Amino acid sequence: MKLLITTGGTSEAIDQVRAITNHASGNLGKIIAEQALRIGHEVTLVTTKQAVKPEPQKNLTIIEITNVESLQSTLEPLVKTHHVLIHSMAVSDYTPVYMTGLDEVQATEDITSLLDKKNAESKISSKDDYQVLFLKKTPKVISYVKQWNPTIQLIGFKLLVDVSKEELFAVARQSIERNGADYILANDLTDIKGNQHIAYLVDKTSEVQAQTKEEIAQLILETLEKGEKHG
Amino acid sequence: MKLLITTGGTSEAIDQVRAITNHASGNLGKIIAEQALRIGHEVTLVTTKQAVKPEPQKNLTIIEITNVESLQSTLEPLVKTHHVLIHSMAVSDYTPVYMTGLDEVQATEDITSLLDKKNAESKISSKDDYQVLFLKKTPKVISYVKQWNPTIQLIGFKLLVDVSKEELFAVARQSIERNGADYILANDLTDIKGNQHIAYLVDKTSEVQAQTKEEIAQLILETLEKGEKHG
Repeated sequence: MKLLITTGGTSEAIDQVRAITNHASGNLGKIIAEQALRIGHEVTLVTTKQAVKPEPQKNLTIIEITNVESLQSTLEPLVKTHHVLIHSMAVSDYTPVYMTGLDEVQATEDITSLLDKKNAESKISSKDDYQVLFLKKTPKVISYVKQWNPTIQLIGFKLLVDVSKEELFAVARQSIERNGADYILANDLTDIKGNQHIAYLVDKTSEVQAQTKEEIAQLILETLEKGEKHG
Repeated sequence: MKLLITTGGTSEAIDQVRAITNHASGNLGKIIAEQALRIGHEVTLVTTKQAVKPEPQKNLTIIEITNVESLQSTLEPLVKTHHVLIHSMAVSDYTPVYMTGLDEVQATEDITSLLDKKNAESKISSKDDYQVLFLKKTPKVISYVKQWNPTIQLIGFKLLVDVSKEELFAVARQSIERNGADYILANDLTDIKGNQHIAYLVDKTSEVQAQTKEEIAQLILETLEKGEKHG
């Protein structure tokens, strides 16, 4: 199969020297890619400069992106030419619009007018004691995947922090519903420590647990192979 | 000499999965450290997880920090036991205080009251179309260095974006004045491309140009040795 795997975390620029980044080492995506290559799949890995990566090898293509915009334009053609998307990248929810000192915000009657402003400076000045950064929601890239390619198998990822299993599964199933994902790999940051990485591969009706990154990779790849045989 | 070198860029957490980071590969600090080790200096390198680093070797100690707070508490004892601080780290100017939806900001009469709020969630919700992040100035770590150790030689760094040479030198000399720095390595992001890295080692009265990271390292180390002989 031709697998498209995303890993690492996107960065949204505030100016030319600062950005908002999502923490993501790229480790899990690297391990999934390595296991997939070992059992004979072709892998396209969409990742970031900072993320750890597999060694260059046969059947592996690596593409680097930076922000959500570049992720979206990179993924669209790739989604159309792959059988599976394993979307483990930590994607920024918000992107900076305008940053200013607290004074300007206080002096502005209708603060929604600030959402139309842009910073002219290449490096925003750091004179004010307090600054205010306005951010807008980024497009949900995962929601386009099945529109781009209705037959692709889509595995989304959901990382929450310190929630109950019930909430984790409910949020995962919302994402299945909204984005037409076949599976969501749901995990909680408090369950990721050293070699331990507890995660659940959730579909509409069931959830299967894995304990380490290697087990997660194995679980996903086995599930995909079953899906291919049945589908 | 015992050289303390900082490199990489600090990250200020917004919540447990997002942070504001300063772009910095760590390349320049790595090259300065390697040259310093080659000519027999002892080096303590204060850096970040993401930054590139020299290979482990004799006379090199590597210490990783994350945010401005950890930088400050790590540097204080080290500044007292080193002869020189080469402070090339890109240090965050601001750190997140509180993030909320635009609605709460609009509904708040005195928005300075939001500066006393804190996010209770471990991962801030991403429901709102617009969010507002309040940030406060971080302490200027460089301003404490000469208080911690009046005899340390202090080389600060100043990165601006797309300014005139006159402005760059003026801002560098302000930093010499304010922070008691012996030299400021002043550079402009638009002059850093591939192997080219134009920079100026500025003191109260003169500025010396370098063209590459290797030349910058050499210039700084030669200047320090002259200072030691004369001083």
